[in-house]
Amino acid sequence: MQPTVIAPSILSANFAKLGEEVDAVLAAGADWVHFDVMDNHYVPNLTIGPLVCEALRKHGVTAPIDVHLMVEPVDRIVPDFAKAGASLISFHPEASRHVHRTLQLIKAQGCQAGLVLNPATPVEVLDWVLEELDLVLVMSVNPGFGGQAFIPSALDKLRRVRERIDACGKPIRLEIDGGVKPDNIGEIAAAGADTFVAGSAIFGQPDYAAIIARMKQAVAQARAR
Amino acid sequence: MQPTVIAPSILSANFAKLGEEVDAVLAAGADWVHFDVMDNHYVPNLTIGPLVCEALRKHGVTAPIDVHLMVEPVDRIVPDFAKAGASLISFHPEASRHVHRTLQLIKAQGCQAGLVLNPATPVEVLDWVLEELDLVLVMSVNPGFGGQAFIPSALDKLRRVRERIDACGKPIRLEIDGGVKPDNIGEIAAAGADTFVAGSAIFGQPDYAAIIARMKQAVAQARAR
Amino acid sequence: MQPTVIAPSILSANFAKLGEEVDAVLAAGADWVHFDVMDNHYVPNLTIGPLVCEALRKHGVTAPIDVHLMVEPVDRIVPDFAKAGASLISFHPEASRHVHRTLQLIKAQGCQAGLVLNPATPVEVLDWVLEELDLVLVMSVNPGFGGQAFIPSALDKLRRVRERIDACGKPIRLEIDGGVKPDNIGEIAAAGADTFVAGSAIFGQPDYAAIIARMKQAVAQARAR
Amino acid sequence: MQPTVIAPSILSANFAKLGEEVDAVLAAGADWVHFDVMDNHYVPNLTIGPLVCEALRKHGVTAPIDVHLMVEPVDRIVPDFAKAGASLISFHPEASRHVHRTLQLIKAQGCQAGLVLNPATPVEVLDWVLEELDLVLVMSVNPGFGGQAFIPSALDKLRRVRERIDACGKPIRLEIDGGVKPDNIGEIAAAGADTFVAGSAIFGQPDYAAIIARMKQAVAQARAR
Amino acid sequence: MQPTVIAPSILSANFAKLGEEVDAVLAAGADWVHFDVMDNHYVPNLTIGPLVCEALRKHGVTAPIDVHLMVEPVDRIVPDFAKAGASLISFHPEASRHVHRTLQLIKAQGCQAGLVLNPATPVEVLDWVLEELDLVLVMSVNPGFGGQAFIPSALDKLRRVRERIDACGKPIRLEIDGGVKPDNIGEIAAAGADTFVAGSAIFGQPDYAAIIARMKQAVAQARAR
Amino acid sequence: MQPTVIAPSILSANFAKLGEEVDAVLAAGADWVHFDVMDNHYVPNLTIGPLVCEALRKHGVTAPIDVHLMVEPVDRIVPDFAKAGASLISFHPEASRHVHRTLQLIKAQGCQAGLVLNPATPVEVLDWVLEELDLVLVMSVNPGFGGQAFIPSALDKLRRVRERIDACGKPIRLEIDGGVKPDNIGEIAAAGADTFVAGSAIFGQPDYAAIIARMKQAVAQARAR
Repeated sequence: MQPTVIAPSILSANFAKLGEEVDAVLAAGADWVHFDVMDNHYVPNLTIGPLVCEALRKHGVTAPIDVHLMVEPVDRIVPDFAKAGASLISFHPEASRHVHRTLQLIKAQGCQAGLVLNPATPVEVLDWVLEELDLVLVMSVNPGFGGQAFIPSALDKLRRVRERIDACGKPIRLEIDGGVKPDNIGEIAAAGADTFVAGSAIFGQPDYAAIIARMKQAVAQARAR
Repeated sequence: MQPTVIAPSILSANFAKLGEEVDAVLAAGADWVHFDVMDNHYVPNLTIGPLVCEALRKHGVTAPIDVHLMVEPVDRIVPDFAKAGASLISFHPEASRHVHRTLQLIKAQGCQAGLVLNPATPVEVLDWVLEELDLVLVMSVNPGFGGQAFIPSALDKLRRVRERIDACGKPIRLEIDGGVKPDNIGEIAAAGADTFVAGSAIFGQPDYAAIIARMKQAVAQARAR
Repeated sequence: MQPTVIAPSILSANFAKLGEEVDAVLAAGADWVHFDVMDNHYVPNLTIGPLVCEALRKHGVTAPIDVHLMVEPVDRIVPDFAKAGASLISFHPEASRHVHRTLQLIKAQGCQAGLVLNPATPVEVLDWVLEELDLVLVMSVNPGFGGQAFIPSALDKLRRVRERIDACGKPIRLEIDGGVKPDNIGEIAAAGADTFVAGSAIFGQPDYAAIIARMKQAVAQARAR
Repeated sequence: MQPTVIAPSILSANFAKLGEEVDAVLAAGADWVHFDVMDNHYVPNLTIGPLVCEALRKHGVTAPIDVHLMVEPVDRIVPDFAKAGASLISFHPEASRHVHRTLQLIKAQGCQAGLVLNPATPVEVLDWVLEELDLVLVMSVNPGFGGQAFIPSALDKLRRVRERIDACGKPIRLEIDGGVKPDNIGEIAAAGADTFVAGSAIFGQPDYAAIIARMKQAVAQARAR
Repeated sequence: MQPTVIAPSILSANFAKLGEEVDAVLAAGADWVHFDVMDNHYVPNLTIGPLVCEALRKHGVTAPIDVHLMVEPVDRIVPDFAKAGASLISFHPEASRHVHRTLQLIKAQGCQAGLVLNPATPVEVLDWVLEELDLVLVMSVNPGFGGQAFIPSALDKLRRVRERIDACGKPIRLEIDGGVKPDNIGEIAAAGADTFVAGSAIFGQPDYAAIIARMKQAVAQARAR
Repeated sequence: MQPTVIAPSILSANFAKLGEEVDAVLAAGADWVHFDVMDNHYVPNLTIGPLVCEALRKHGVTAPIDVHLMVEPVDRIVPDFAKAGASLISFHPEASRHVHRTLQLIKAQGCQAGLVLNPATPVEVLDWVLEELDLVLVMSVNPGFGGQAFIPSALDKLRRVRERIDACGKPIRLEIDGGVKPDNIGEIAAAGADTFVAGSAIFGQPDYAAIIARMKQAVAQARAR
């Protein structure tokens, strides 16, 4: 398993030239494309759907596309994203009545499957499905609402989830999303995250390569300690 | 009021280079940008939201952006689209409990307002709000489902709505969406439409200018008869 | 049937001393108590429920209590209001899947039954149930939203409903709610209304008797013309 | 087109020996099997689903099975019933956001398609889809609620729908459901119905053949007048 | 308390002759009738409702009828099933906003009450209501979806629930449903289950008595170890 | 922090003279006004909304108003209550998809924020948000249903929540609601509650001061032990 993954959220990219933006950020060292899907029901915002994912694949993007579904319900749209080229699909357990079944569905469609924990979601929701997961995403802001800072208790939650993943022994990625920046990414990595979503922290900068390098370096330093 | 408006639906454009696509189609003679918003609830698909609209404005698009909301409920997202640069916002009366109020809300946000009639929707839904409208959109396919042909009864519906608009005396546009092509656009114009949405019929062609010119010519010829 | 009914909406009364307020307005010549129930679902506001209705009855109010349900769904709460002392219960046809059945339920509970037309609702919703009704309420503002003026097309709608009621031959009251004031009540009565809801127009005045008298006089004058 | 169809509703049959009951009623002269599906959402009751339909086919029933969906939403369950052997599938227009599309779906699955009018539903819902229909079902009671009598205004509604069907010129059946009995079926046939659902009126009788014969005779006499 | 209960799920029986099927399986040694209710909302399928339950009682079935509600919401249909002859009613805690209240309602209607744990549901949902329960049902497949195998983590969940039941000291049955077969029922019993639902494993066999005997024997052997 | 708070629920007051009732109960020693909001969706009852809260403030009430939202969803109505004069706003975590965000919203509106635990709700829902809270409300009856007795397991739940609050170290009130009376309030206080809601136990008595004094004394005695 790749030790560190930087996954820029394309919600912060320029949508008028998305292919170019994604090419640039991948060339600059990003590992995955993070793809935030909001449906104006699970969260009060509506963003982008399968046809944008498909356009990236047609444009030539071959990096993993990491789809975070902030939608409710979940099942109907899973095959659409699988067909549109998603590599991983993660969702919120509150948004599916049959969490285990939705995980099976994602995997039956040929994708990796993840669960997302909202800031208030207890980690016990992982108890009976951890072995089915390829990824756990810990939200360090509330999804779908703008202008929020990193919620400090997410560090503790990362540590608790890390313990469970290590105990389980399977290669499950631990991703963090919300307020991740070069100056806190080291601390976040130290708490157990290995996959880092960042939006404006990357796309808002003039030099993508510089910022990504700085983030990876901070992670490496934190791990070295 | 402009006699004929061609409004290419950007759902058929290449989303990896949307700004370029929109620039090209406007340079080729398109009048409006038609913007199809689906929320995976009112229709079984999820497309694009306010941030894509905003990106087009930031990219420099100044043509009218004609937002067709296939979402339910409607009100919460209206201010988001107004802020993102929408010129017109239309919605389905079945999707709002308070249709008159939603129209007021759209206009209070500085946009023009429209209602959309599904293939099965009776025209009586216009009875008490026609005077509040800037646009009526008649669907000639079922919104949100792929691979459909133009539904012939839409011609009759256009005629019925045209009579009501003419009787009302206000400058209300009559738009058609679904299966519009150069070879049927004349008949559609003759039935009363003055605003024409087309997706793959335009974006699927190599020469946008040629196809738009052919559509406008067919409309002019139909009107001349 | 009483020729004119003035029904002050208690939403505009002082809720800290509601019994006294209602006593005063009835003593001042009001005929009914209009009781606006909002559930924060059918409309974006939440007001008062059965226990307030019951308190008025226990306080000694014997005038008809005219309950306008802006709730969705409707059926579950009907028996609660009947038990709490409601005289009439009216609801929006969009809020009940089984409109005819809900009317039967209201009547089976010993109350009179009404339907309410939103500003955009076609009058055709009355076609197959008019004979079951004791009251039709035409909204001249959008229910549940503040600060609105009387919508002029409501006059036309009153005329259309009045024709249907007269053709039906049954003693069905025609009520209007929204922006009714002494200076437009005559015109409204001329259009066919016989039952008038007023909120701040009455409770916002120092002398309830004077304003109610002025309203009744304006109605009488309009009818005399 | 068969001039008269008697369609016993199996909701009134003995579910402990349903195959035998259906065999008996068909042997006694019934033409179709009427199959009432309730989901505890569109109506406050839950009855039977596709597996019961499939069991009848496996049992050897070859008569048309006429599935009346009192469910909301509609689309997901349509293929299940088609696969289970339904011949016709009808639904309530209020229960589907995309009525035209649902009709296409039913037909694409190889079934005939119908719309159902609740007692309060305006006939205008048929305006733009009548040509797509194989059947219109007029409810003369409120579906899903027990112990109701035939609603007299259904006769008028039958006449109005009959006019539309005749004007359309297509072979569309006109079905009635609710409180149909030997002593009112003549009057109902005279109003335009050609397909008659009956539940306890048939299954509650000791001699199915006698009652069905009496119903058919009453229809014939009414037509002869 | 009966040490072992075999509860065949009638969803796998022949619905054309359900009474006969149920008689046969009870005569063959089955202890309870397991009755799976699906509403096409909580799960994507619709099965059978109270009238089928009532038909079994009228047919003469006296064995306990164990109703598993895969419906949402729960409360409205509880009295219908109690009246139709249900002995136990169990439901999913996710499907009721007021789990404790729904349990009281079931018991007030004269039935025993159970909670059902989906494969992903944490056992902590039992924490504050275990004393109110007569039965805990652990799902070893996802309810409402076909063709699934026994999920191995259900064994661990049975052990965890068994500990809680034993600690509580009340006579609460521990039921398992999904993929139970003669060759795994021993292991399941060893994990703590005492009540076993089986569908096609029983009804799909020519000799019900032989298969039930084999299951009971496997349970006894497992317990003897 | 005030050691003991008595918060009479105004649902049990006389709504015909609410201002007078609230004045009386506060003069009699009550500390807070408890304000129960039901929307007929989260619970099957509809009570009172922001306008009643505002009326109390206009009437001159300066004591804290403790709003308990039994509504779903939560966010839309929070600003209405803040504007209407609420001091604290608490809600049920099941009723908000984004519990942490709703807490932030309440605090951003200038109110204190609380979470409410239904009788069956696991205490784990507090795990990641306890530090954000000003109050935890433990329900000792099911909210929205009448005629219930104090549920004994609430005492254990109080003890478990009290441990968490003490471990957290922040001044978080622990409130109890449901069946609180002079003869059990001591035991409840001993289990860790410091804030006591009572409805008919206070408003049903002739002498508010006597009953409140008795309750406070019982709390003091329990603590002294």
